[in-house]
Amino acid sequence: MLNKTIENFIGCDAAFEEAKIVLFGAPFDGTVSYRPGTRFAPKAIRAESYGLETYSPYLDKDLADISVFDMGDLDLCFGNPQRVLEKIEETAAEILSANKIPFMVGGEHLVTLGAFRAAAKKFPEIRIIHFDAHTDLRDGYLGEKLSHASVIRRCHEIIGDGKIFQYGIRSGDRPEFEWAKSHVFMNKFNLQNLDVAVDGCKDLPVYLTLDLDVLDPSIFPGTGTPEAGGAGFDELREALMFVMQNSNIVACDVNELSPHYDPSGVSTAVAGKIIREMLLSL
Amino acid sequence: MLNKTIENFIGCDAAFEEAKIVLFGAPFDGTVSYRPGTRFAPKAIRAESYGLETYSPYLDKDLADISVFDMGDLDLCFGNPQRVLEKIEETAAEILSANKIPFMVGGEHLVTLGAFRAAAKKFPEIRIIHFDAHTDLRDGYLGEKLSHASVIRRCHEIIGDGKIFQYGIRSGDRPEFEWAKSHVFMNKFNLQNLDVAVDGCKDLPVYLTLDLDVLDPSIFPGTGTPEAGGAGFDELREALMFVMQNSNIVACDVNELSPHYDPSGVSTAVAGKIIREMLLSL
Amino acid sequence: MLNKTIENFIGCDAAFEEAKIVLFGAPFDGTVSYRPGTRFAPKAIRAESYGLETYSPYLDKDLADISVFDMGDLDLCFGNPQRVLEKIEETAAEILSANKIPFMVGGEHLVTLGAFRAAAKKFPEIRIIHFDAHTDLRDGYLGEKLSHASVIRRCHEIIGDGKIFQYGIRSGDRPEFEWAKSHVFMNKFNLQNLDVAVDGCKDLPVYLTLDLDVLDPSIFPGTGTPEAGGAGFDELREALMFVMQNSNIVACDVNELSPHYDPSGVSTAVAGKIIREMLLSL
Amino acid sequence: MLNKTIENFIGCDAAFEEAKIVLFGAPFDGTVSYRPGTRFAPKAIRAESYGLETYSPYLDKDLADISVFDMGDLDLCFGNPQRVLEKIEETAAEILSANKIPFMVGGEHLVTLGAFRAAAKKFPEIRIIHFDAHTDLRDGYLGEKLSHASVIRRCHEIIGDGKIFQYGIRSGDRPEFEWAKSHVFMNKFNLQNLDVAVDGCKDLPVYLTLDLDVLDPSIFPGTGTPEAGGAGFDELREALMFVMQNSNIVACDVNELSPHYDPSGVSTAVAGKIIREMLLSL
Amino acid sequence: MLNKTIENFIGCDAAFEEAKIVLFGAPFDGTVSYRPGTRFAPKAIRAESYGLETYSPYLDKDLADISVFDMGDLDLCFGNPQRVLEKIEETAAEILSANKIPFMVGGEHLVTLGAFRAAAKKFPEIRIIHFDAHTDLRDGYLGEKLSHASVIRRCHEIIGDGKIFQYGIRSGDRPEFEWAKSHVFMNKFNLQNLDVAVDGCKDLPVYLTLDLDVLDPSIFPGTGTPEAGGAGFDELREALMFVMQNSNIVACDVNELSPHYDPSGVSTAVAGKIIREMLLSL
Amino acid sequence: MLNKTIENFIGCDAAFEEAKIVLFGAPFDGTVSYRPGTRFAPKAIRAESYGLETYSPYLDKDLADISVFDMGDLDLCFGNPQRVLEKIEETAAEILSANKIPFMVGGEHLVTLGAFRAAAKKFPEIRIIHFDAHTDLRDGYLGEKLSHASVIRRCHEIIGDGKIFQYGIRSGDRPEFEWAKSHVFMNKFNLQNLDVAVDGCKDLPVYLTLDLDVLDPSIFPGTGTPEAGGAGFDELREALMFVMQNSNIVACDVNELSPHYDPSGVSTAVAGKIIREMLLSL
Repeated sequence: MLNKTIENFIGCDAAFEEAKIVLFGAPFDGTVSYRPGTRFAPKAIRAESYGLETYSPYLDKDLADISVFDMGDLDLCFGNPQRVLEKIEETAAEILSANKIPFMVGGEHLVTLGAFRAAAKKFPEIRIIHFDAHTDLRDGYLGEKLSHASVIRRCHEIIGDGKIFQYGIRSGDRPEFEWAKSHVFMNKFNLQNLDVAVDGCKDLPVYLTLDLDVLDPSIFPGTGTPEAGGAGFDELREALMFVMQNSNIVACDVNELSPHYDPSGVSTAVAGKIIREMLLSL
Repeated sequence: MLNKTIENFIGCDAAFEEAKIVLFGAPFDGTVSYRPGTRFAPKAIRAESYGLETYSPYLDKDLADISVFDMGDLDLCFGNPQRVLEKIEETAAEILSANKIPFMVGGEHLVTLGAFRAAAKKFPEIRIIHFDAHTDLRDGYLGEKLSHASVIRRCHEIIGDGKIFQYGIRSGDRPEFEWAKSHVFMNKFNLQNLDVAVDGCKDLPVYLTLDLDVLDPSIFPGTGTPEAGGAGFDELREALMFVMQNSNIVACDVNELSPHYDPSGVSTAVAGKIIREMLLSL
Repeated sequence: MLNKTIENFIGCDAAFEEAKIVLFGAPFDGTVSYRPGTRFAPKAIRAESYGLETYSPYLDKDLADISVFDMGDLDLCFGNPQRVLEKIEETAAEILSANKIPFMVGGEHLVTLGAFRAAAKKFPEIRIIHFDAHTDLRDGYLGEKLSHASVIRRCHEIIGDGKIFQYGIRSGDRPEFEWAKSHVFMNKFNLQNLDVAVDGCKDLPVYLTLDLDVLDPSIFPGTGTPEAGGAGFDELREALMFVMQNSNIVACDVNELSPHYDPSGVSTAVAGKIIREMLLSL
Repeated sequence: MLNKTIENFIGCDAAFEEAKIVLFGAPFDGTVSYRPGTRFAPKAIRAESYGLETYSPYLDKDLADISVFDMGDLDLCFGNPQRVLEKIEETAAEILSANKIPFMVGGEHLVTLGAFRAAAKKFPEIRIIHFDAHTDLRDGYLGEKLSHASVIRRCHEIIGDGKIFQYGIRSGDRPEFEWAKSHVFMNKFNLQNLDVAVDGCKDLPVYLTLDLDVLDPSIFPGTGTPEAGGAGFDELREALMFVMQNSNIVACDVNELSPHYDPSGVSTAVAGKIIREMLLSL
Repeated sequence: MLNKTIENFIGCDAAFEEAKIVLFGAPFDGTVSYRPGTRFAPKAIRAESYGLETYSPYLDKDLADISVFDMGDLDLCFGNPQRVLEKIEETAAEILSANKIPFMVGGEHLVTLGAFRAAAKKFPEIRIIHFDAHTDLRDGYLGEKLSHASVIRRCHEIIGDGKIFQYGIRSGDRPEFEWAKSHVFMNKFNLQNLDVAVDGCKDLPVYLTLDLDVLDPSIFPGTGTPEAGGAGFDELREALMFVMQNSNIVACDVNELSPHYDPSGVSTAVAGKIIREMLLSL
Repeated sequence: MLNKTIENFIGCDAAFEEAKIVLFGAPFDGTVSYRPGTRFAPKAIRAESYGLETYSPYLDKDLADISVFDMGDLDLCFGNPQRVLEKIEETAAEILSANKIPFMVGGEHLVTLGAFRAAAKKFPEIRIIHFDAHTDLRDGYLGEKLSHASVIRRCHEIIGDGKIFQYGIRSGDRPEFEWAKSHVFMNKFNLQNLDVAVDGCKDLPVYLTLDLDVLDPSIFPGTGTPEAGGAGFDELREALMFVMQNSNIVACDVNELSPHYDPSGVSTAVAGKIIREMLLSL
C-alpha cells in the first residue's frame, strides 16, 4: 500500500503528543492598510523549506534532534477579524494547555493578538519582546480598533505599562512615538540594548513576536510595507538567539511575509531560515 | 502661477455639477477568499488610461463629447465590510440624488452591494444585469454573510425572485446552481440570450454589474480567481453595448481587476478600454 | 488534541484502499532542452486547487462524489533519468496491481514513459491517446535517448505501429513528421477527428497522456516551450470529455506546466481545472 | 583551435554574399509615448529562437533550405531619431543595392521610416501593406513629426494617396480615422479583405510592415500599447502567408515587441515563430 | 456636492502661493542608453507614498508641519531632448521667480540640466553637489551631446571648474575619471569627505542632484544601470541630512528610479522615503 | 559588404590565438535539486555586459588593455551529466594545452568538475580556492554521485586532503561539516583568513571556483538556493582581488547565477561586474 507524502516545514514531522513545539499557520491579512498577501506566507514557507538544510552551522544543532508538530494552517474566514482572533486564541490555548509552545506563522501582525490572549490567560505575568519596523501602537486605524497597525496597543491593554520591549522601530506617526515614551520600552532604529529586555523579563514568561519587516528590505523585500533602514540577517539572527537563550519564551510568532512581493523567493527563504534558527533555540 | 496637473480617468475631467456620470473608485478587497489585490484597481486603471485613446472607433464617439466627473477613490477602512458598504451607499445615494449615474470601479465584487442598496432605494423596481464567471450566490462563506462570493445573493434579498439576469457563469458550488434555478435567470458558460435580460428589464431601471472575470483569463489574467472558458474581449464588448443601448441603466460598476497579478499590464488596459466603451454607451 | 491539516488536491481526500483513482506527482524536469521548471508543477497545482470549486457545472458532478487518493509527490533524484523512470514505473505498477487508475501529474513529458511501461506490462493491448503541441517523436536529442522530445518514440518502441493517436501537433523537425506518417496517427494543428482515436481504441485499454502545451499559450503561457496556434480551453475540455467518455482509460497523466513562467497564475489554475474535469470523467 | 559559437536567429547562418535575405535588428524606442522597451526585442528574439524548430509544418519548409544572413543589431544612439533613421536607411540601401531583401526587426515602429525611405528610392512604385492595431497616421505627437504614432503618415508623404493598405486597425484618434478615409485603404478591426491589398499591389514592389500589436494581447501581451480585440496567431499567420505568396515583397519589418512586458516569454516566442514563417514565405 | 480626491505626494497638499517648496515630476527617459523606464517614476512615487508615514522619527518632523505644493507631472514629448529641457527650465524658472524651491522628480538624469539652467541664471554663483554611481561626465554618447551620461559635463560647461562635488562615483570610462581630476571634486566609491563639499559651498547657493543609483542595488534595484558597491540607505540618508543642514539648497532633484525593474516595490518605497527626508530637511 | 555584429562579453573580442584568457559558457543545470535555471546564465551575462563599462576604477585597468577570447557557449545535452563533464573537460584541456587560462561561466556548480579534471591533469600539484555558501561536500545526493551538492567532494577525490580552501560556507548538512574538519580548510560564515589559502597555495597552481551564492541574497537574489548571511559585493570583490593577485591562478570559473530568479536584473549585473574584475586581475 502506498502512503501519503505529507508536507511539513522541513524536519517538523513529530506527532502532537511527542512534540515540544507546535507550529501552525494563521493565513489572515484582512486588516492590512497597504499591500495584502501575507495570507500566502505559511504555505510558501512550508513549501520552500525544502531548499533549507535541517542543520544549522550557527548553532550546531539539527531539526532532526528536536520534536516539532506542524499542524498545518488554520482555516480562517475573511472580513471578520474578531472571529479570526477567536479561532487563533482557541488553538493557542489548546497547545498551551498541553504544555507545549505555540509557534505561529502569520499572516499579518494582528494575528499576534489571538495567540497573545491565550498566552496571557495562562501566564498573567507575561512580557512581550517585539521586533518590528513599525510601532503598531495606533489606537485605531480609520476608526477600526483591530488592525495590524494597532496590535501591540491592543496587547498593551491586556498587560499594561512597562511590559513591552520593542526593537528596530523606525516608522509610525508622531502620536505613536509620543505615547510609547510612557508606556513601553522602545529601542529605535536598531537592535541594540537587548539586555534591557532580557533583564526586564528575567524569570518571567515571554511572548516573542517577530514582524519580519524589522529586516532591511534589501534582504527582505517581500512584505506589505517595506521600510528601508532595517536590520541585516545576521544582526537579527544574533539578536533572536541572544533573547531566546536568555529568556523563557512560552509562545512566539513570525509575521508579515508577503510572498507575492518576493519574485526572487529570497524573502521566503529568509523567513524559513529564521524559523529554523528559532525552533532550534527554543 | 503654476497649476496642479490632476489625474483623472482619461477624458473624464468634467466638474460634478455639469457631469451626467460620476466615476468613483471603491478600493476594497477585504472579504476575498483567495487572492486579494483588487484594492489597487481603480488607481491602476486611472494611471494606465493614458495609454488609451479617448476615441472609440467601435462607437465612433469620443470621451471629449460627454461629461464625466472622476471623483477619485473613496477612503475605505479594512477589516469592517459593513462600514465600507455604508460609505459606498452614501456616496452612490448622493450621486443618484443629483440625478447622475454612479459608475463605480472596484475593488472586489462585494462593493456592488453598497451602491445597489442606494439604487434600490431610489428605484424600487430595479433589475440587475450581471456578467460574471461566478454565481456569487452563496448564502455565506465560512459563516460570513458579507463576502464577494455572496454579493448577488444579498442583492436578491433586497429585490426578490426573477429580477436578476446572470451571464457567463461557469463556477460555483452545486447548491448555488440549484438555488439559481428558481430565483434568478442564469445563462451559463457564455453571453448568449441577452434578449431575455433586455426584455425582462424593458422600461425598468437597471443596475449593471460587471465582474471582469467573466472574460477569459487569456485576455484578463489579472483577477483573484481566474476561470478558464470565459468570453473574449469583443464578445463582452458587444454584449455590453447591446444591453446598454437597449436598457435604462441607472447605475453600474466594474469590478475584480487585481493589477498585481497582471505583470504585462494587459488586464488593466482591457479594464480601461471596457470602461471607455461603457461610458460612451451610457 | 489538534490534528494536522493535510493538503491534497481539492476534494481528493480518500484513503488508498477506498480510492478508485490514485493521484501522484512526478516532479522531474531533468531532460528539458529549453526552459526547465516543471518540477514545481504538482505542488503548485495542489496548492492552487483551493481556488477551484469541487463542483463542475460542465459535467454536473462533484469531486465529493468520487474517491481519489492524492499520495503526494514522489521523491525523485536529478541527473539520472533512468532511475527516475524506474521509480515512476514501480509506483504506477503498484497502483495498477490494486486495480486502481494511476493519475500522474508531471513534471516534464518524459515521466510518461515510466507510467506507460507499467501500464503496458499489465495491458499488453494498450493504446495511447496523446494531446500535445510537439510530436515528441525524435529518436534522440543531442545523443540522448531519454528526453522529453523523444518520449512518444520510446513508447512506440514498446507497442509498435498504429497504436498511437496524436492531436494538436504543430511543432517538430521534418524527420519526425516524416516518420509519423507510417507509424502513428497524427492529427496536426487541431483537435478534430477524435473519432479516429475512439474507434481505434474501441474495447481496448487506453493510456491518455496530456501535454498541456497543446493549449494555446494565450491561455497556457506557463510551459517550457510555448507554441502559438494551439487549442482553446473549452476545445480541449470538450475533446478530453469526448475521449474519456468513449474509451477505457486505464492510466493517464497531465504534464508540462512550468509555474515559474506563469506570473499571473492562470496556467496553474487551468491545469487544476483540467485535472478536475478529467477526474470527474474517469 | 577553438571556434567562436555565434548566435544568429536560428537557422540564419548564411554569409552576406550567398544570402537572399538579410536580417538585422534596429533596437530603437526613443519616441515611444507610453511604455518603452522595444529596444530589447531583436536580441531577445534571437536568443529565444533556440526554443523554435527550423521546420514549419504549416509550410512544410525548413530554414535550412534557404539562405539568410543575420547581421546582428545596428548600433543606434538614443535621443536623436533623425540620425537613427539615417543609419537604418543606409543599411537598408546597402542590402537593397546588393539585390537582397532587408528584413528588419525593431524596435518601435518609427524604424520603418528609415528602411522604407531606402526601399522607396530604389522602387518608386512601391506600395505598403501594414498590419497594426493603431493607425500610426498622426500628423505629429506633442509637436514632434517623428514618432511611432506618425510613421505611416510620414511614409504617405513619400508615396501619396491610395498606396497604403492597413489591416487590423482598432485604435487612434478621430482625426486619424477621418484622414484615412481619403488617403489610404483601412480595414478596421480584423484582417479581412486582403484581396484589396493584393489586387492593389499586383505586379508592384511591396513593403510589408508588421506591428505585432495587431495581434490580440491574449497571445501577444509584450508590447508597449496593448489593444484588446486583435487577431489570433493563426489568423495573422494565414493573412501574412496569403499576402506574401501573392505579392512581390521587396522589404519587410516586424516591430513593437517589448520583452520586459512579457514575463512568461510567450510574446517573444510568437515573434520568433512569425519571423520564421515570414522568412520561409519570402 | 462631492469633491475630487486629488493624489499628491503624501502630505504635500499646499497651494502654490503658500508653498515654500514646489514638487514636480519630469517623466522623461529618452536618452537612456541601457534600460529605460524612469518616465514612470514620479507617478509611482506619488502613488506609493501612501505606504509612508508623514512623520520622520529620524528628524522628529512631520510633512504636516511644512508647505509643499505638488504640481503633478510635466507633459513632455519624447524624441526631442532639447524641447524637454526647455520646458523643464521654464517650469523651474517660474518656481524660482516666486522665491520657492523647485524639487524635481525625474525621469532620467538629463532632466537635471533643464532645472540647473534655470537655477544658474538666477544664482550665477551656484555650486552642484552630486550623488551618483556614475560620473555622468562624458563629452558625448554615440555622438549626442544631450545624454544622461553627459549631464554633469553639460552643467560644468555652464559653471566651470571646481564647482561640482561628486560622491559615490564607481563607474565610468577611463577618460571621464581622467578629466574629473582637473575639473571637479570627485569622492570615489563612498560618501565620505562631505565636509569638502560643505566647505566649498559655504555661503553659496547649491543645486543638489541625487541619482538614486548611488545606492547599492541591494536596496535600490529599480534603476536602469545598477552598480554594485553603493551606499546603504542610512548612509545616504545621513549624508543628505548633513549636506542639506549645512548648505543653502536653492533647488534639488531626485532621479533614475525605474519602477518596472522593481517588482517588489522596494525601490519606489525607498525613493519616497528619501524624498520625505529631503523635504523635511529643506 | 555588411559585417556581422558579434556579441561577446563586453571588451572580450580577441581571437583565440592572441588571447591569454579564453572565456566560455557551460550552460548546464541538470543535477540541481531545488530551483534550476543556471543554464541561462552565460547568455544573460554576455547580453547584459553592455550595461557595464570596460574600465574598472577599482583596479584602474580596462578590458581594452587585455586579450580575452569569448568562444561562446558549449552545446551541452541534458539528462547525462557524465557526457556534459566530458565535453567541458575536453574544452578546458584544449585551452590549457594552448597555454591559456580557461575562464568558465556556468551553469550549476557541477561544471567545475569537468574543467578541474583537465586542470589537474596538466597541473598535478593544483590547489582549489573555493568561495561558496554551501559546502558542496556531500558524498551523494539521493544516490547520485554527480551533483552540484557533491562537486567539491568529487574534486577532493582527485587531489586529496589539505588542498582545498573554502570561504563563506554557511549551509550544508552535519556530516559535511564533520567531514570537512579533517579533509579541507573551511572558513565558515565569512571571507576572513584568506592568507591561509594564499600561504597554502604559494608557488603552486590554483583553480579558483566561485559559486556566486557566497554573496548575500540581498545583492545576489538570482540563484537557485539563496542563503542569507553572505558576503557583500565589495567584500567579495576585495577577497577575490587579494587571492588573485597573490596566487597563480591557472583556471577559474564563476557559477550559479539563475537569471529567471532575478527580475530586477541586478544579479546578472553583479555577475558581469565580478567577471570584469576577475578578468582584469588575472
